[in-house]
Amino acid sequence: MNHLSHAAEQFQESAIRRTGMLGATVPGLISLAAGYPAPEVFPWDDLQSITADLLARRDGNTLQYGATRGYRPLIEHLLSGTLAARGIAAQFEDVIITTGSQQGLDLAGRVLIDPGDVILVELPTYSGAISAFHNLQGRMAGVPQDAEGLDLPALDATIAGLSATGQRAKFIYVTPNFQNPAGNLMSRPRRLALLEAARRHDLLILEDDPYGSIYFEDVTTAADTRPIKADDAEGRVIYLGSFSKVLVPGLRVAWMVAPRMIAQKAELAKQAADICGSAFDQRIVHSALDRGVVDRIAPGLRAHYQAKRTVMEQALTATLAGRVKWTSPRGGFFLWIELPAGVDDCALFDRALKAKVSFVLGSAFFVNGQGHQFARLAFSGANHEQISEGIGRLAAAIMATD
Amino acid sequence: MNHLSHAAEQFQESAIRRTGMLGATVPGLISLAAGYPAPEVFPWDDLQSITADLLARRDGNTLQYGATRGYRPLIEHLLSGTLAARGIAAQFEDVIITTGSQQGLDLAGRVLIDPGDVILVELPTYSGAISAFHNLQGRMAGVPQDAEGLDLPALDATIAGLSATGQRAKFIYVTPNFQNPAGNLMSRPRRLALLEAARRHDLLILEDDPYGSIYFEDVTTAADTRPIKADDAEGRVIYLGSFSKVLVPGLRVAWMVAPRMIAQKAELAKQAADICGSAFDQRIVHSALDRGVVDRIAPGLRAHYQAKRTVMEQALTATLAGRVKWTSPRGGFFLWIELPAGVDDCALFDRALKAKVSFVLGSAFFVNGQGHQFARLAFSGANHEQISEGIGRLAAAIMATD
Repeated sequence: MNHLSHAAEQFQESAIRRTGMLGATVPGLISLAAGYPAPEVFPWDDLQSITADLLARRDGNTLQYGATRGYRPLIEHLLSGTLAARGIAAQFEDVIITTGSQQGLDLAGRVLIDPGDVILVELPTYSGAISAFHNLQGRMAGVPQDAEGLDLPALDATIAGLSATGQRAKFIYVTPNFQNPAGNLMSRPRRLALLEAARRHDLLILEDDPYGSIYFEDVTTAADTRPIKADDAEGRVIYLGSFSKVLVPGLRVAWMVAPRMIAQKAELAKQAADICGSAFDQRIVHSALDRGVVDRIAPGLRAHYQAKRTVMEQALTATLAGRVKWTSPRGGFFLWIELPAGVDDCALFDRALKAKVSFVLGSAFFVNGQGHQFARLAFSGANHEQISEGIGRLAAAIMATD
Repeated sequence: MNHLSHAAEQFQESAIRRTGMLGATVPGLISLAAGYPAPEVFPWDDLQSITADLLARRDGNTLQYGATRGYRPLIEHLLSGTLAARGIAAQFEDVIITTGSQQGLDLAGRVLIDPGDVILVELPTYSGAISAFHNLQGRMAGVPQDAEGLDLPALDATIAGLSATGQRAKFIYVTPNFQNPAGNLMSRPRRLALLEAARRHDLLILEDDPYGSIYFEDVTTAADTRPIKADDAEGRVIYLGSFSKVLVPGLRVAWMVAPRMIAQKAELAKQAADICGSAFDQRIVHSALDRGVVDRIAPGLRAHYQAKRTVMEQALTATLAGRVKWTSPRGGFFLWIELPAGVDDCALFDRALKAKVSFVLGSAFFVNGQGHQFARLAFSGANHEQISEGIGRLAAAIMATD
């Protein structure tokens, strides 16, 4: 009954509570908690046509077991399409299709983490990564961020501190594009400096990029989102991407691009974990790429989430200007607010639930016990009216606590 | 880079080779290796209708993230349908939908195995379970089987041997129904005696049942396949079932029924492993249950695989009678043959590949380095003609080696 240490279990149980999943049972609740894509931008017509065509062909492989590594035409399309467009030169043997990016985190962890190993993460960082690394009995050390991204002098200091006590970090986990939860976009100079720091410290980088395509065109261009992996001449970066935010999350199709040796080990780990992903889902995603659906809907998705971001910022300005602080997100799904002095995320959460609005506790994203002055607000899933009303309720809850 | 010890890696790499996947690249090869279901019995019309209806409804949840535990109506249907029919009384909190039964093996292992722990397995046992437990750094001790199933005096002796060296087994992994690879059907008295032995030794039982519904009606009834879990009054059995063999494997939908504490921990482990299974695939399977598709096609599947078994046995009798030995399988996908004295599975494999037929090495299923006198032949995926021709080629390869 190990592998889930008591601390990890406690953390996870509270994290589940914090996702606001319980919200589903509260009538009238507006959830600003879960980072769900908006179903109104799912390409329903295309998916109907694609699934009908796939099944009409009656190719047994469509519903059969498949290769552990993934459906070959999907991988080949990724290589020549999405990855090439992002500046990543990779080959078939470097890619594995995963059951969501969460499985990429798990597989990378299985390959790289020995129980007790140290993993460097951003402060704050994605709570799902914390769960994955905790579950593999990794220990995490947090490194602060500034407006440009990871604070590199702080990274050096953290590594020096570990060294002084005989510890060594295995890898650093980062989300340079519109980070979950803080929304940060790491600057290009900072990305290159991080790669150089990784070289200097002989660290691997685990780069998670679920939101790279969801940049807001009023303030950001695709060039700003160029992955660190694109400049990885040494084979130091493991890159995770996903179709969850740019197509639909319910098919659970994502991918890992890794240095070949790591990809080989990750394939063995995946074989032991679930043999292979869904053949049907992978073929649906492949057809969506092949028919140009993913490229065609991308501008609409960017506009959709950009508009929701604007609505949320307007509502925050109208109700909480001067009381909460935030940096306007340049892409992604989240707005990360700093609460007024003296307002604690846990106390606010309980009050907000009573007011029928939910969010995720800032402290859920910190591996050092801090972050109680923050809250993560998702603008992705709710509609404009819900966003405005939800922020209104949150503002009342904050004011009552303030 | 641990978690895959060198030995485990070597094993897995050879196991991959042994699955005969490489066969896909040999033109004209007849594969009797992989245990694939037959696409000609997939319910294509039903699946076309189900997917069209699901997408026509445009319910966002169909393609959204879902609960880690699984799609509630699917779990509820399993409880009142499949599980109740098999004599298993369980509740919602005891069930988790998994990404194939392989994930059930992995999650059970994650919850139960500490590195170095001993797991008891049958000799031979399913190679995917060996991979899963190896990957979690479990050590395995094999227990022989006889015609009735696991040899219980040998189980007692194995446990006593472990005790004498200060070791204790965490659980025993068994496949009572038409075991992969040996095809054994554990007798009912033996099942009850195993449950009693587990009580006596305070062991958990991990019961894997992918083939329970594929019994051959000429020699077996549903009653013969009653799971051990159905008689588990103490909460000692973790039960794995799957839709891969009774519907299609390409949707990766399976389930675990576990004592509640273990189910809770497995849910947390799944959250860290892949967050949730495919919402779309789970809804397709639910609709197939709800429309009665799974029940309706079951007799046809049984007849289909029974006929293939007969064809394979006739071919073996015609070409190898007196040279190889086997027990006629009463269900499932596999025929397990003992090779003539002096014929080694590895040597035969290479010769068979040259003759363009593949199988899986017997030794791939043994955790003690033995089993080289056996071969596993799958009759599930090939058609009648391929089975006859494949056995003819195998016979020639054996004769040349003999």
